[in-house]
Amino acid sequence: MIKSRLMKIREKMDIINTEAIVLFDQSDIYYFTGIKDIEGVLVVTKDSFELFVSPLYAQKAEEILKEHVVVTKNGMADVVTYLEKEDIKSVGLDFLTTKIQHEKDLSGFEVKDFTNQTKIVRMIKEKDEINTIKRAAYAARNAFLKVYPYLTDGKTEKEIADELSYQLRKAGAEKESFETIVASGENAAHPHHVPTDKKIKNGEFVVIDFGACIDGYNSDMTYSFLIGAKDDEKKKLFNAVFYAQLFATEMIAPGRTKVKELEERAKKELKKYDLDKFFIHSLGHGIGIDVHEFPYINMKNEMVVEPNMIFTIEPGIYIPGRLGIRLENMILVKETDVEVIAFTPLMEAM
Amino acid sequence: MIKSRLMKIREKMDIINTEAIVLFDQSDIYYFTGIKDIEGVLVVTKDSFELFVSPLYAQKAEEILKEHVVVTKNGMADVVTYLEKEDIKSVGLDFLTTKIQHEKDLSGFEVKDFTNQTKIVRMIKEKDEINTIKRAAYAARNAFLKVYPYLTDGKTEKEIADELSYQLRKAGAEKESFETIVASGENAAHPHHVPTDKKIKNGEFVVIDFGACIDGYNSDMTYSFLIGAKDDEKKKLFNAVFYAQLFATEMIAPGRTKVKELEERAKKELKKYDLDKFFIHSLGHGIGIDVHEFPYINMKNEMVVEPNMIFTIEPGIYIPGRLGIRLENMILVKETDVEVIAFTPLMEAM
Repeated sequence: MIKSRLMKIREKMDIINTEAIVLFDQSDIYYFTGIKDIEGVLVVTKDSFELFVSPLYAQKAEEILKEHVVVTKNGMADVVTYLEKEDIKSVGLDFLTTKIQHEKDLSGFEVKDFTNQTKIVRMIKEKDEINTIKRAAYAARNAFLKVYPYLTDGKTEKEIADELSYQLRKAGAEKESFETIVASGENAAHPHHVPTDKKIKNGEFVVIDFGACIDGYNSDMTYSFLIGAKDDEKKKLFNAVFYAQLFATEMIAPGRTKVKELEERAKKELKKYDLDKFFIHSLGHGIGIDVHEFPYINMKNEMVVEPNMIFTIEPGIYIPGRLGIRLENMILVKETDVEVIAFTPLMEAM
Repeated sequence: MIKSRLMKIREKMDIINTEAIVLFDQSDIYYFTGIKDIEGVLVVTKDSFELFVSPLYAQKAEEILKEHVVVTKNGMADVVTYLEKEDIKSVGLDFLTTKIQHEKDLSGFEVKDFTNQTKIVRMIKEKDEINTIKRAAYAARNAFLKVYPYLTDGKTEKEIADELSYQLRKAGAEKESFETIVASGENAAHPHHVPTDKKIKNGEFVVIDFGACIDGYNSDMTYSFLIGAKDDEKKKLFNAVFYAQLFATEMIAPGRTKVKELEERAKKELKKYDLDKFFIHSLGHGIGIDVHEFPYINMKNEMVVEPNMIFTIEPGIYIPGRLGIRLENMILVKETDVEVIAFTPLMEAM
């Protein structure tokens, strides 16, 4: 168990006055125990904790957590038995990650609302987490630089995506953070396009969205290129997105700027060119053990941008039937300014 | 909307007497609408249906479902408004896939237990689903055959896994069904081992578990090889697993055999060699849109094996600190017998 993190979550438990929390989310379990990709149930009480796993995960769990592992024979019934034995009366649950059935399994206890509390703790990264995320970002950038020379007229979206997927692993990724997106021409008008056998053509924008997962931490970046000759109108579209990203990034004053102001700023920039109506998703998201996590960067989020948050800033425009452009950077918030992680100048040569 | 499937699920709705069901699971949504990788909420009533999506997915959803798409501004509040307008009083939810928060959002309605009902429908595959799963299995096998020649002393686990991951995509996979496992020597004693830089050595078993996803349907197969010289003791271990798989497969009489009997049969075979204590997971699982779905092949499952089920049979032994062996086939149940999908004789050359 990672002690500093256990301390942070117990502070949150005190606030809602719960005697225990029961966590089911794999990312939460990795965060608190250091055990990755494990299905299990983590119970944290005020003075102890216990990880419940099936025999399949027993060896892996016991190597790290030793006597704090319970190998279950009866699933949730064993969790209930433990809680009763410890004389626990109240349990906190995250209503956004916990299934209805698990609340029913715990119906003998007073259920308290612990929604988002682990996500709020995980939102402020520790030093080793920041280093791991940087490694994941640099691996992704290095992989991309291997593929960049092949990004030419005639190659298919899927060829580029498959090659990048391969290079991400060669660069040290244990897996891709998500399925690589390569979208060209009108396909790029779909933010979540799945690569096809469509050939990339001169005069088209190509959007490439990708990330590497290293030691369970993710990266996520998007580059957009105009292939071949660059006409003035397309340059203008690209620059609108580029400036939306730049100005939203530049306005961050750690400890003062609200998250929602960032999206407002990006929208304002796009509005100058009447492009804000084509910006159909939010400006960004925190990144770490989950590819999408707190803080979500959108107009509704009243949170203040704080040091040691890491999130993306990714404005985009999607013109149905015509084109799409998205630019995504990962931003590390420091004490007085921000750092663009794995900043790659070649991307902005427009 | 896929009409035959809508009909099947309405039969299930009638049984629990619910006026509507609300589905959140992406795999369920793909099954009923044909729209893949979409975040949304699908409401099915007795005479209509509606897919609620954010603006991000609007274009993609409307291309397929047309007027049955609601682009939401207020998330679940829009779902509630729709249900009220339709004068719906009761909603069915799957307690194992629905989050607590969503039950709270729907607290104005009578909530009925619809747990596992979509999974039971999805368990019996339609003809086109069977064909797609076969394509996914053949693509995986073809990819493996490209990598097989490199499976030699001195290569690392990660090199083999990265190469196979690449070849899966080259063979037509839109993605891997899951992260490819390559585990050698004592690492193979962990069923879910993540490939490392450990070199494969002569005299070791190597376990390779992989699958291709095509058109949203998965395959899943595991091969185990003894690298280099084959000694008698290791041959005996391999053959025990091989016969456990073979006899469990051979005993299937569609419409008569119970699922649990398969695991019993495999265990009985391993017990002959006192190896049953090293078999620490269940015998298999259904496969389709999810890599793991109904029917789960274990001792507790009283279901009867029915035609058009597709599931894996994958006995394994895991001897801590020493070795692991797993053999996994995909089984298609037909009217009077079974078919091993993408059967590959080279694997059993021991």
